[in-house]
Amino acid sequence: MKLYDWEIAPNPRRVRIFLVEKGIDIPIEQVDGPGVALSSDYLTKNPHGLVPALELDDGTVIGEAMAICRYFETEQPDPPLMGTDAKDRATVEMWERKADMEGLHAASEVFRNVAPDFKDRGLPGQRGDAIPQLPQLVERGTARVARFFQKLDVQLADNDFLAGERYSVADITALCTIDFCKWIELEIPTECTNVQRWYDQVSNRPSAAA
Amino acid sequence: MKLYDWEIAPNPRRVRIFLVEKGIDIPIEQVDGPGVALSSDYLTKNPHGLVPALELDDGTVIGEAMAICRYFETEQPDPPLMGTDAKDRATVEMWERKADMEGLHAASEVFRNVAPDFKDRGLPGQRGDAIPQLPQLVERGTARVARFFQKLDVQLADNDFLAGERYSVADITALCTIDFCKWIELEIPTECTNVQRWYDQVSNRPSAAA
Repeated sequence: MKLYDWEIAPNPRRVRIFLVEKGIDIPIEQVDGPGVALSSDYLTKNPHGLVPALELDDGTVIGEAMAICRYFETEQPDPPLMGTDAKDRATVEMWERKADMEGLHAASEVFRNVAPDFKDRGLPGQRGDAIPQLPQLVERGTARVARFFQKLDVQLADNDFLAGERYSVADITALCTIDFCKWIELEIPTECTNVQRWYDQVSNRPSAAA
Repeated sequence: MKLYDWEIAPNPRRVRIFLVEKGIDIPIEQVDGPGVALSSDYLTKNPHGLVPALELDDGTVIGEAMAICRYFETEQPDPPLMGTDAKDRATVEMWERKADMEGLHAASEVFRNVAPDFKDRGLPGQRGDAIPQLPQLVERGTARVARFFQKLDVQLADNDFLAGERYSVADITALCTIDFCKWIELEIPTECTNVQRWYDQVSNRPSAAA
């Protein structure tokens, strides 16, 4: 079993944090650098051309961070990071998808449409014709990130963690999103005091170093 | 318990098909028409301003189609639509997310950025400042849909269903995506014979009428 990773990218970091929280240690191979996941060597492993990917001992390759997390959650349910009963699992999944689509996708939209390394690759994992960067998406993505912070702040006013009382994979996706936002200089707005309180708390967990 | 739905939209249709496959019958309330999910009445139920949403008997509201499916999958595992063991669950989740992000999001990008009803609402479920439609995303989304069809065709060359041998929620998302594509006149390319074979098969299931 092996995890394909790119250490500085926010998406695979989600899996590394998840594994630390579970206490699971597996070999990790770096597929690092813009476009390296689209190299022919890697594409023979994972035709989607994205990291993270998990290669199982039977050769099966699982892409998508949350699909990899689902694998380990099923194999080793404790500590639960994707919910326990039906309502809890659904709540975690709702907030993880919100954090992913309204947070991480928005921040990625800002970055990919301006970074010189991603010229002609305005979308991740796509091959074929060039995909131009669109400056309008930098502006739109920045506004999306601002709305995401506001939404998080409302939810965290009444909840210790994003999906309620227990730390979950929704917090992991939100943490990786916010650290990525900071890296592209989109800081937590000062009025979002609930987000800041939560951010300080989840950043202090040992797993945040992953 | 009640499901909030918009009958003509592809996203909530996923939940309706899922429920038919499970043999689960619950009350459904229509929140239909562009912008109706952003009305104050509905926002008091679901502040995310999106359908579908599931209201539980204790008042909890679960948004996100796949989170709602997760609720029912946990409550009633048979027939399994989100995988069985760890590898199967991860494979289903990978393909569902691919179909969602590379298929349904792409088709939605085409539609929302040109449809007059969505003027100034270029993204779903967002409030606050107007979000302009971007004509460039119509072109980009159309190219994404074309790549999605190619990817599906490769996967379905060796697999009866998207995630392998068993019909799953990944097929449901892909079916709803393709029917939505047809509605916006993006047909299955004639060379994608595997997609067409699979499409005919899943469209013939009684659940496809949902």
